[in-house]
This record gives sequence, C-alpha cells and structure tokens, in this order.
Amino acid sequence: MIENARVAVVGVGNNTSALVQGIAFYRQTGSLVGIRRPEIAGLGVGDIDVVAAFALSPGKVGKPLHEAIFAPPNNFPHLGAELPPAGIEVRRGLLDGTEIERVARSLNGAEVVLYSAPSGRPEVARAYAEAALTAKAAFINTTADPVAREPSILDRFQAAGLPLIGDDLASQFGVSVLHRTLLRLLEERGLTLVSSYQVNLGGTEDFRNLVENPGTKHRSKLNAIGSDKVQIAPLGYLPHLGSQKVAHLNVEAQGWGGTEVSLDVRLKVHDPSGAAGVNIDLIRLAAGALRAGRGGYVAEAAPLLKSPPGTAV
Amino acid sequence: MIENARVAVVGVGNNTSALVQGIAFYRQTGSLVGIRRPEIAGLGVGDIDVVAAFALSPGKVGKPLHEAIFAPPNNFPHLGAELPPAGIEVRRGLLDGTEIERVARSLNGAEVVLYSAPSGRPEVARAYAEAALTAKAAFINTTADPVAREPSILDRFQAAGLPLIGDDLASQFGVSVLHRTLLRLLEERGLTLVSSYQVNLGGTEDFRNLVENPGTKHRSKLNAIGSDKVQIAPLGYLPHLGSQKVAHLNVEAQGWGGTEVSLDVRLKVHDPSGAAGVNIDLIRLAAGALRAGRGGYVAEAAPLLKSPPGTAV
Amino acid sequence: MIENARVAVVGVGNNTSALVQGIAFYRQTGSLVGIRRPEIAGLGVGDIDVVAAFALSPGKVGKPLHEAIFAPPNNFPHLGAELPPAGIEVRRGLLDGTEIERVARSLNGAEVVLYSAPSGRPEVARAYAEAALTAKAAFINTTADPVAREPSILDRFQAAGLPLIGDDLASQFGVSVLHRTLLRLLEERGLTLVSSYQVNLGGTEDFRNLVENPGTKHRSKLNAIGSDKVQIAPLGYLPHLGSQKVAHLNVEAQGWGGTEVSLDVRLKVHDPSGAAGVNIDLIRLAAGALRAGRGGYVAEAAPLLKSPPGTAV
Amino acid sequence: MIENARVAVVGVGNNTSALVQGIAFYRQTGSLVGIRRPEIAGLGVGDIDVVAAFALSPGKVGKPLHEAIFAPPNNFPHLGAELPPAGIEVRRGLLDGTEIERVARSLNGAEVVLYSAPSGRPEVARAYAEAALTAKAAFINTTADPVAREPSILDRFQAAGLPLIGDDLASQFGVSVLHRTLLRLLEERGLTLVSSYQVNLGGTEDFRNLVENPGTKHRSKLNAIGSDKVQIAPLGYLPHLGSQKVAHLNVEAQGWGGTEVSLDVRLKVHDPSGAAGVNIDLIRLAAGALRAGRGGYVAEAAPLLKSPPGTAV
Repeated sequence: MIENARVAVVGVGNNTSALVQGIAFYRQTGSLVGIRRPEIAGLGVGDIDVVAAFALSPGKVGKPLHEAIFAPPNNFPHLGAELPPAGIEVRRGLLDGTEIERVARSLNGAEVVLYSAPSGRPEVARAYAEAALTAKAAFINTTADPVAREPSILDRFQAAGLPLIGDDLASQFGVSVLHRTLLRLLEERGLTLVSSYQVNLGGTEDFRNLVENPGTKHRSKLNAIGSDKVQIAPLGYLPHLGSQKVAHLNVEAQGWGGTEVSLDVRLKVHDPSGAAGVNIDLIRLAAGALRAGRGGYVAEAAPLLKSPPGTAV
Repeated sequence: MIENARVAVVGVGNNTSALVQGIAFYRQTGSLVGIRRPEIAGLGVGDIDVVAAFALSPGKVGKPLHEAIFAPPNNFPHLGAELPPAGIEVRRGLLDGTEIERVARSLNGAEVVLYSAPSGRPEVARAYAEAALTAKAAFINTTADPVAREPSILDRFQAAGLPLIGDDLASQFGVSVLHRTLLRLLEERGLTLVSSYQVNLGGTEDFRNLVENPGTKHRSKLNAIGSDKVQIAPLGYLPHLGSQKVAHLNVEAQGWGGTEVSLDVRLKVHDPSGAAGVNIDLIRLAAGALRAGRGGYVAEAAPLLKSPPGTAV
Repeated sequence: MIENARVAVVGVGNNTSALVQGIAFYRQTGSLVGIRRPEIAGLGVGDIDVVAAFALSPGKVGKPLHEAIFAPPNNFPHLGAELPPAGIEVRRGLLDGTEIERVARSLNGAEVVLYSAPSGRPEVARAYAEAALTAKAAFINTTADPVAREPSILDRFQAAGLPLIGDDLASQFGVSVLHRTLLRLLEERGLTLVSSYQVNLGGTEDFRNLVENPGTKHRSKLNAIGSDKVQIAPLGYLPHLGSQKVAHLNVEAQGWGGTEVSLDVRLKVHDPSGAAGVNIDLIRLAAGALRAGRGGYVAEAAPLLKSPPGTAV
Repeated sequence: MIENARVAVVGVGNNTSALVQGIAFYRQTGSLVGIRRPEIAGLGVGDIDVVAAFALSPGKVGKPLHEAIFAPPNNFPHLGAELPPAGIEVRRGLLDGTEIERVARSLNGAEVVLYSAPSGRPEVARAYAEAALTAKAAFINTTADPVAREPSILDRFQAAGLPLIGDDLASQFGVSVLHRTLLRLLEERGLTLVSSYQVNLGGTEDFRNLVENPGTKHRSKLNAIGSDKVQIAPLGYLPHLGSQKVAHLNVEAQGWGGTEVSLDVRLKVHDPSGAAGVNIDLIRLAAGALRAGRGGYVAEAAPLLKSPPGTAV
C-alpha cells in the first residue's frame, strides 16, 4: 500500500481550514462528493498527512493546528468531521528571507510545501521556496506572487529534481469560470453581447482586504473575463456571509433581429472549498512527481493555475 | 454577384414572422448583431427571398405574407424593419398527402422548402417533402416529425441530387443548452449534483399546447438534459409574455467537503428568434448544397439539429 | 402557575409534525425565534400538551405520535429537538359521520380539537366538530371546508359555551401575503401594474395533489391576490424540495412617464412552519376563550384565517 | 378653467429631464399611467408650465431647456413625447449667496421654485430660497441640505405667506421603501430577521459621486432601514445602466421552530422617474397652498419627504 503524502502548510487561514477538515471528512466518510479526481499518483483525497504548519498570527502560533484553523478571523464552517486530537502545533512563520534554515529544519519530513498565505509578499513566498529546496521538498505557490514564473527559481527546482507548482490557484468553481462560460456560450451561439456585470459579496478577511484595496484584483478579474463590455462592480464586504461568497451576474445580449436575451444569475459558494478542492489535486500532483523523480515544472498542474510558468509576471 | 436564395416557407407562425422580419432588418441595417455566421455559401443573412408561403389558418391564407405574420395567435413583436409592400400571398397548405402536385406547382421557383409548421403531423411533413422532390427543391424539416431520419426518404433526395436537412431544429440559444452547459461545467469541475430544476414560462400558442399536452416535450426535455436529478417543472402558459420565454433554473451541488454550491438563473429570450437564427443558417446550407449539386444529407447541418439522421425516430 | 393547554390533533401530516416538533424545540431552547406572540392567555409557545392524535394512514395509526410524524409521505425536516419518549399513540380517525362517540371518548381530556387534515371532506370536518361538542372541547378548523362559516354549527358552539375557530388557516408567512404586500405597495405609490406572475414549486404530498387537481386552489390564489393582471402559473411538484416551497414572483409596472419598474422575487419557505406558527396562536386563543367561558366565534382569530365566519362558503 | 402652475427649476439634471418630458408625455397622451394623484388643487399632471430654468454646466447654460435636458452627463432616456419647439432658455445659476437679485428677477413669474440641484451646497440652496422670497414664490427643496428644517427660514416664509416644502425628496418607489416594507412584513408576521443585504447599482453621475464618496448616503440608507442586521453593500457605478438603478436585496429570516425563510429580490427602476413622480405632487401642493394664501409649512407634503421640518438637521 502506498504511503500517505506528507505536507507542510504555510498559512493557517480559511483555505487551510477547508483543506484539513476536508481531508478528515473524506477519510471518515469514504465519500467522494465534490471531488474531481478520486485518485492521483495512487493517492486518494484522504491520503494526505499534514505534518507541519506555519502562521504569523499570535492567535494561531503555538496552538494545535486543529484549534488554530478555527481561530478568528477564520470563519470557514465546521464540516463536522472529527479531527485527530493530537495534531501538530502551528509554528511561527517567516516575515522575510531570514530564518530559512529554521523553517527547513521544521518541515518534519514533508514531501510537499503548500504555500497558502495571503498574496502580496513575494519575498516571503520565495523564502519558503528556498526552505523547500533546502529540505528537498516540492513547492506549491497558490498565491499571485511570482515564484514558478521566475525562470531562475524554476531552474533550481529542476536541477534539484524537485517539483515546483504555481502560480496562483484557479478555484475549483467560482464566479470567474461561471461568467466566462456563460459569455463563451453566448459567443459560440452567435449572440451579441450588449453589457454584463458581476457583483461579488463576501465575508472573509480576504474580502475585506479586497474592498479596502480593490485595484489589483479588480483588474485581474477584468482580465479573467476578457471583455470591455463586462463590468465588475465594487466588491462588497458583508461579514455575516462568513466564508460564503455571493455573486450576482447579469448578461444582456442580442439575438436574431436584435431581440433581447437577458440572463441573471446568483451564485453562492464557499471560496475556501474552491481552493481546497484544487489544493488537494496540486498536492497529489507534486507528491507524485517527487516520488517519480520528476523535478521542475509539473505540466499537468497548468489547468489548475491562473498564472503558470510562461504567463506574464 | 451571387443570386439571392429563393425559399418557400410552410407555416406562417411566430418563427416565420421572426425569419421574414429579421431578413428585412439585416438588409436595411447592414447590422450583424445576433448573427452566428455572416456568410454561408456566399450568402449573407439578407440574401434570402421568400418566394412562396403556405398556411392553414383562415386568418392567414389569402393575405400578403407581410400581414399574415402579424395575424393572431402570432405575437412575435414588430422588429421595426420596413417590409416590402408588394409581398407574396399566403396559399392554402396541405392537410394530408393529397394535392402534392398543387403545392409543387406553387413553389414559385423556390430552391429550398422550409417546413416550419407545428410538430405532430408526420404525413403532412412528408407530403411537403414529396412536393420538394417533385419541384426539384431542397427540403428542411424543422419539426420533430421524422423525415430526414427516414432512410427511404433520404435515399430519394440523395438519388435526385437534392439536399435534405432535418429533423428538429435546435434553438440558437435557449434554456436547454444553458442548463446543459451549467451542468457540464459543474461536472468538469468535480462538483456533485444534488438537485436541479427548470421552470419554463411562455405566452405563445405553442406554449399553450405544451401546457395542455405536456407529455412528449417534457420527456424530450429530460432527455436533452440527461440526468435523473434534474426536474423539469410543468410549463406555465402566461399570455402576457407574448413570444418571450422566461425560464427559472436552479442547481444545487456540493463541492469540497460537501459544502453547498447554489446557482439560480433567470433567462429571458424570444423563442422565435432562436428558431430564425438557426433557420437562416439551414436555408443557406441547403441552397449552397443544391447549387453545388450535393444531394441527400447535409452533414454541416447536424450541429443545428436535435435529431439528425441516425438518431432514434 | 397556569396549566398547559391540552390539545387533540386530527391529521398527522407535515403541519402536525412542525407543530409537535416546534413545541418541543421551544420548550427545550427557551428561544422565541420566529414567534409572533410569546404569550396568549398566559400560555407560552411551549405550554401545549398534545394529548390525542388521529390519522387514517395505516403507516401512522397505532404508532407513537413522535414516530408517526416522520412516516411518509411526511417530509418536514427533523428540527433536532428531543421528543419525549413515551408519547401518545395515534388512533384511527373518522372516514365519515359514524363513530363520533368513539372519537369523543378518545379525546383524553383535550380542551381543544385542532382539525388539521387535508381539505375536501367537509362531512368529516363536521363529524370532528360534533365530537368536540360532545366532549365539551373547543374546535379549530384549519381547512377550507366550511365549518365555522356554517351558522347552524356556530350557533351550537355558542350555545354550548365552546369556542369555534375557522375556517382555513392563513399562513404565518407565505407567497400570497408577500405578493399582496408588493402589489399594494406599488399601488400606494401610484405605480401602474402591467403584469405579474407567481410560480409555486413544492415537494409535499399536498403539492402533488394540487398539481394533479389544480382548479380550486388556483382560483382561490387568484382571489387572494385580487387582480386580473396577476397570473398564477401551474404549480410544480418537485419531490426533492421536501417540505420547502419555492416561489418565483415577477411584477412589471410603470412609473412616471411610463418608465419601467421591474421586480423579481424568489421566496423559500417551509409551508408546514407557516401553518404551525399560526396554529400555535389559534390553540392558545381557543384554550384561553374556553377557560374564560367564552363560547362561539373567537373574534381575535379572524386575522389568522382566510375564511372566517361571514365570508362566502 | 384653472390656470397652469408656473414653475422655475433649479438644476437641469436627470430629475428635471424626467419632469419636463413627463409633463409633455401626460399632456399629449392623456394617460395616467404611473400617477399617484391625478389631481391636486385642481391641477392635473400636465397642468404645469416650466417658465425658468437654472444650471451651472457650460454645456447646459444658454441652451433651450428641451435640449439641455439631454446634454451629458444626463442619461435619462427619451420618453418619446414631443417637446414644444420654442421652450425657455437655461440661465446661469448661483454659485453662492451673491446675485440673488438677478435670479429673483429671472424667475419669469414663477409661482414655485423647485430646487433640484445636487445635495451638498446648503448655502446655495438657501440663496435660491431667498430669491423665492424676494419674488414672492413658493420654494421646494428636494435636496438633503437643510432649508425647511431651519426654523428661521421657515418663519420668514410663514410671515411672507409663502409655502416652503422640504427637505429631501422621498422617491415615489425605490429600494429603500421596498426593503423597509419587506422587513416590516416579516416583523408583523413574527419572523426573526437573521441578516439582510442591499446592493445598489446605477449609471448616473449621482451614482458615480456616491461611489467616490459613499459615507453620508450609506449612513442615511442604514438609518432609513433602521436595523443593524441590515447591511448596505458599497454602491456600484455601472455606466451602461444609464439612469436605471438595479438593486439586489436579500433577507434571511427564521420562522417557526427556527426554520429558514429566504427572500431574494431584484428591483429595476429609473431613479429620475421616482423623483419626478414626487416632484409633480410637491409642485402642485406648493402652487395650491400659494393660491390659497397658506404660507410656511405644507403639512400634506411631509409623507413625500425624508426630512420634513422637525427631523434632525
């Protein structure tokens, strides 16, 4: 029987909560609900052991991982799975490029380092990549910060025979892919787009940050949709939504003879679930490549990423 | 310069109203709004002349086509295009297999016979196909009645070097394709479908018939979606909607860890526009094949049909 | 301290399930969530004892009430409240006017008989009213069958000093009151109604019956709304909805200068909760009147009923 | 026959466009669609003559009013009514308290001055009130700037026998009244509010200003709703909406036994129509009071205002 994949997680936010709880849920229930690929490299969705975790928040560092994932501002719901009582302890993470050695020594035999911290600190992301190189682990960058897109870093993972996956996780199912799919369907059918809007509402800390500093994300959303007739309205932070996101989409188009076609959509989805549902695949792809001795770029991961190597930094 | 395609239409309902008005609209405006294929076989969307029309309703027979398309129960809106004053006169159509010769003689040089009457009278559909054979015209069957699926008929068109297109028009854009696209997207992304419903509301005479005799259509809808978790609610006839259809879709699914994903959609669309937007392509495919001397099955039309030759009768 | 009200329930469907479970829920939690009137006649929402229950279904008769409320086709969800283990046993109900004495003797000291069976059998409703008279209990008719509207029956309750409440329960919150409220608001504001529709979807046995025999309810819905511009689309039976009802409302109106005002609403609500939330008030009104020696019509109940005495039979 | 009311408008934005076009529409069509009160003080909705207009924008000043109402950034649609060719010319408005005399002399015999400029310049609002006093006209303040709430100003109008109406127009029909009505209905029915949100999207210049400076309006919205469980999401400026506003409302509540009640609403409405539909009543109330010799506060106007005299400044 194949051994479980050993993973170190960096960042103990909602996405990590969804990942850790989900793994326990699937182990206990044997269910395959919501799973895209039951097995990758011989590993099922429950065949993952989280062996180390790093965070910065004083409310999380020093706590057992299974408590820390419920510490505020985390608000992903309890999935109801029983979590192993004697879990691992969350360690103090990196603030910059110092202490890489300390982290490398604390990875506890991890085969894969999953970097799942907030975007916006590329030097920290690279520091963890260094730690992975040092400890001979694969590295996954789920943030928008450029790591796998940096040829110099990719080369070093390649040379070391270590897989590198990134950058920027594409959610398993979210408003961008839904919006794109609808617009593509209209186009395939020959309808003419008149206007479209997308309003996103959410209640996580990430959402609060986006609302306070909307610039980058807004632009990246527009790029993701790829039409100047599509307007992304300001994001709304609604704390009571918790980790649930609500999106309102509208599409106005014209069909034969200029007649109106009108489409209104409301989507409700848990963003952290969308991240965990992809992370579970990235982890298994990384572990599989590592075990097979394949270093560098993991091509199969490209469809699960927004900015794989080769895309603009 | 290429000559306009000459078409005879059988049935003067909303779909024919949308077709006739749309052709005038595109000729006058030069617009390409809502058009999938600007040119087929050298023919633009305005390069069609309707040269004969057949109907059964006393309120339509004997009238100029440009008046008849607005006679009740037709309720497709006026598109605003100016219609040529001296149009053709609507002739009395067939009730059965007699009088095929009369119709054949009245086709007025049509290259294509577009059969766009209500479904449910296969012997009448075949009588018009006979008339097309007699007059050496291509034949398009937009109804669910089996014509092109009948090998004996297809063979005779083939032998005569005349194109035969059918059966059953797939709308340019409608609730079925939207529902299927959403369910396929969920599946591709690994979400687990929990339940889904579709409610259709419309105000045309066709809708009234479906509401009074829902059986067949209901079943064909379920087939089109292809999942036993999808429920199509009874259709609702709401006269005030006119030729507009409103559909409410709901999809409930589960993502990672069994978390909820919920999708609610409202679609508003003019059904006759969806038909005309496909008929314009079928007509040009048929005329192009006829002019090129290609008889029998027109393979390029298959994606525009629900039941092309080879599917079950 | 005031004694609990003693109630016999006739009919062990979803509404009775909601009532019985809700009483236990409020007793255990002390919560007042979803409660319109915390106290009536000194009685809180938990101060009700169900002391007898009658049903016809072989799957329910002879079972403890706390099991029978979950027997199919009932599908109101488990509210999670713990139900007393040694509950009462469901007895065989009446099919017609015979056996009134047997029922009267089985009421087990009930002060109030709550008639909560399906509508459509007025003679059975009256037989239970007779049993209540015999046993000197108040009677509540929640069905559309005329009981309290029958002056001869009302007179006999009056003469006997027994309260009579009916007919036809108005839900605590449902699509009719919502639709009426929206239309009234438009009218107050001077907007002109153009059209409106209402589509109701549900998954209970009641809903299945309405779909199979829509006539009466449909008409009564239209009356409840009171406008010929409002269309109630055919009801849709969607088993997966369980006891949840989903309604889609649309209102199109015109404001100043004829400009468009458009309103689309989706309501999700548990119908049995809407019934239980009113039954809890009717029971307490009936018990209070009985204890105060006030027989006949209970005027305070009128706003909670669709057809109180004086309305057309 | 009664004489038309003579009105001077200050501000030539969308609201004035809706007012001027609507008056012409009702005169020409004789329609009463969208009208709350067909007659006030003997005046119908078409019995208003706009006799003077003031604006600041160089694109409007000096133009005929019937052109200026379509000058950008105005984007209220053409209602299709024919506008009198020889209309009045838009004059240069006030920037501060100087030139009051000039404006007073230019009122052209107006009985009513309608102050319909953007909110936020109270000293300008008061300067126009001075001009009205000087010219012996009634004054209506539709902005949030305090004028009628200022006792010293109200006293002077009272003493002069001139009506004063204000402050802050309540729309004929908008998202606030809809949201309040829904929440009140839930409350009356005893449901417990869990959460609610409101998202407002619009395409006017006013909307752009609100998005760039959301503070005040946001707070006033929250006050208008009056519950801390209700969240008003950031407003979204979507230019393609033009003068149409789209609002998405959600209400989550609990009914009997804590069961879920969920309400989702989408409202589409033209804000300027909502303003014009109230302004038409305020103008007639003011003219009626003036003609009847009633100065000062016009009590009947209070329900049409957000901040009548006596509310906090």
